[in-house]
Amino acid sequence: MTFFDIDKNDYKISAVLSSILTSDDLYKIVSTSFLPFLENCKIIDLLIRKGFVKVDNNRILLTSKGYELAKELRVAGLVDNYCKNCSGKGYVVDRYKEYLKRFEEITQGRPEAIQDYDQGYVTPITNFLRISFAESRGDIKNKKILIMGDDDLLSIALAVTNLPLEIQVFEIDERLVSFIKEKSRKYSLNINVTRFDLREKMPASLDSYFDLFFSDPPETIDAFKSFIGKGIFALKKTGGAGYFGITLIDASLNKWKDLQRIMLNDFGVVITDMIHDFNEYVNWEYHDTTPAYESAIVKAKPSHIWYKSTIYRIQTLNSKGFNEKLDTDILQDEENATSWFFLLIFNKSISLRGKKWKLHW
Amino acid sequence: MTFFDIDKNDYKISAVLSSILTSDDLYKIVSTSFLPFLENCKIIDLLIRKGFVKVDNNRILLTSKGYELAKELRVAGLVDNYCKNCSGKGYVVDRYKEYLKRFEEITQGRPEAIQDYDQGYVTPITNFLRISFAESRGDIKNKKILIMGDDDLLSIALAVTNLPLEIQVFEIDERLVSFIKEKSRKYSLNINVTRFDLREKMPASLDSYFDLFFSDPPETIDAFKSFIGKGIFALKKTGGAGYFGITLIDASLNKWKDLQRIMLNDFGVVITDMIHDFNEYVNWEYHDTTPAYESAIVKAKPSHIWYKSTIYRIQTLNSKGFNEKLDTDILQDEENATSWFFLLIFNKSISLRGKKWKLHW
Repeated sequence: MTFFDIDKNDYKISAVLSSILTSDDLYKIVSTSFLPFLENCKIIDLLIRKGFVKVDNNRILLTSKGYELAKELRVAGLVDNYCKNCSGKGYVVDRYKEYLKRFEEITQGRPEAIQDYDQGYVTPITNFLRISFAESRGDIKNKKILIMGDDDLLSIALAVTNLPLEIQVFEIDERLVSFIKEKSRKYSLNINVTRFDLREKMPASLDSYFDLFFSDPPETIDAFKSFIGKGIFALKKTGGAGYFGITLIDASLNKWKDLQRIMLNDFGVVITDMIHDFNEYVNWEYHDTTPAYESAIVKAKPSHIWYKSTIYRIQTLNSKGFNEKLDTDILQDEENATSWFFLLIFNKSISLRGKKWKLHW
Repeated sequence: MTFFDIDKNDYKISAVLSSILTSDDLYKIVSTSFLPFLENCKIIDLLIRKGFVKVDNNRILLTSKGYELAKELRVAGLVDNYCKNCSGKGYVVDRYKEYLKRFEEITQGRPEAIQDYDQGYVTPITNFLRISFAESRGDIKNKKILIMGDDDLLSIALAVTNLPLEIQVFEIDERLVSFIKEKSRKYSLNINVTRFDLREKMPASLDSYFDLFFSDPPETIDAFKSFIGKGIFALKKTGGAGYFGITLIDASLNKWKDLQRIMLNDFGVVITDMIHDFNEYVNWEYHDTTPAYESAIVKAKPSHIWYKSTIYRIQTLNSKGFNEKLDTDILQDEENATSWFFLLIFNKSISLRGKKWKLHW
């Protein structure tokens, strides 16, 4: 077993111990450790094998040896100091209560999240929190807004407020295109919806056209370039704003560093805000048919919303963005592949955002 | 007057109009426009000369021509959607109420802010909000903490909680060094205080020593390198965290872009959080003896806290930081000089963080 000895200098060990000191629930641990899902499972598995962690009735607990390790590494639990009124997001949706009700009426029967396009949509309140945040920056009223990928139906939330000048949706999923089109016609929402694969180049006519974009891209470098880079291409070159979510569940801090470098160096934008756990995602329906449910670590389904992302706000300043066609599979990347390798070694199965990853030794 | 014609594509015009639509108070306008103080004054002055803005009893107002311009530029006012319970910061200090009281007792008679070192300290609550934020990330308890520049007396706030393992302050101002040393002795706070000029190299023995740093650097590139770069040098190379504030009042978004590039490219850290208006600064006493009070734009003193900064949290990931001696004046930079040039043209006087800038045509 020495091959997998614990490296006490590995900050990931400390991060996971800190989260286990905070909660015995796998999903809570994953959502607080700042490490990707698969990385958490890998480390928890290692800690179990080494006798620092045990699993009891789906609860993940430190053993007495585990408590000693935490003490030795000077690891503390995470204290819940988030504001209870806004769940730590800093913004509230009070002003949009009526619109929220209207949104929920209109979006009855919405298409459920499917894994073909890495879907997973946010709660209705999250949509209005985004609007709340953006309106506090003067970014909504009378603005020309682009939405790239709209399983969240943010376009409908924006339209019911009647604030934007123009709303354009690019969406690959025919079900969503039809749904938004139909609702827009029925309720006179005036949303432009175009079926569009964001791996393609954007029409040159959209260069510098929009004031604002929203997006929630899949979390690979190529998807990020395809969505965010093209969003920046479509924004006015200075003074435009973009809002998007990135998790630390599907992406590592190393990937964040790469994404931030791409934004600063290649796209030429500045980051103005990053709010932790701002976007909350509805648990996807197909979760209990995935290997997570069969996982050796826990057999429980998530009992609460656990998949959250940081919202980034960026602003253009002589920016250029990116507008090239990509032929790659933008939903998968090497980072996932690396995680798979460890899972393979540990003979574990796990799901991540609904992807069926069952691997055997 | 055509030399100063309005460029309707200049996002700064839109930004200032948006802030004037939101408030008639100069300090509120400055704190919401995302433009530096001097830039605000320059643009307001231009808008006054062109008949878009007027000043009435120290209130800054749009003229009817100004409202037309705002409409043409599709500029909206800023909507106040901040959570009232936490003022939009996302964190609360409930857990630290007793410590806050203790802090206020101990820091009676603290040295007032002076302009020699670009001082201006935060409210006591801001200190505990920083602790609240950091403790929610497991960054305080049992940690070795470095504070670079401590006119905020954050070291005393940390010490009264009794949470950190070690607190080291580097401070240039002899008054503060003596004050913190004396209080530490009197109340057994166990704070290490060293008189240190951060333009100097850090001792090699501090390389990778700390878990965490806090700082609130002067906002020039060189000061940023001297404070934040050296803070990163002194952090463990991976998994260390740094917290610091940067305004959009002394620094422009262009400078933010430069600072972010330095962090990502040169220091090799990742940004994990950026919370708008997190740090609030007590109005400095010498404000009414500065040229701001004589400014042609308004003659009113700030009636409320208006100087706020975004808190950044960064994390090390194979980072290196910066540890070189700088012989420059780190309190001034070209950006200020550029602003001075415009002030010179407009024959205005203005103060910025207490600096006496009176210029005549």
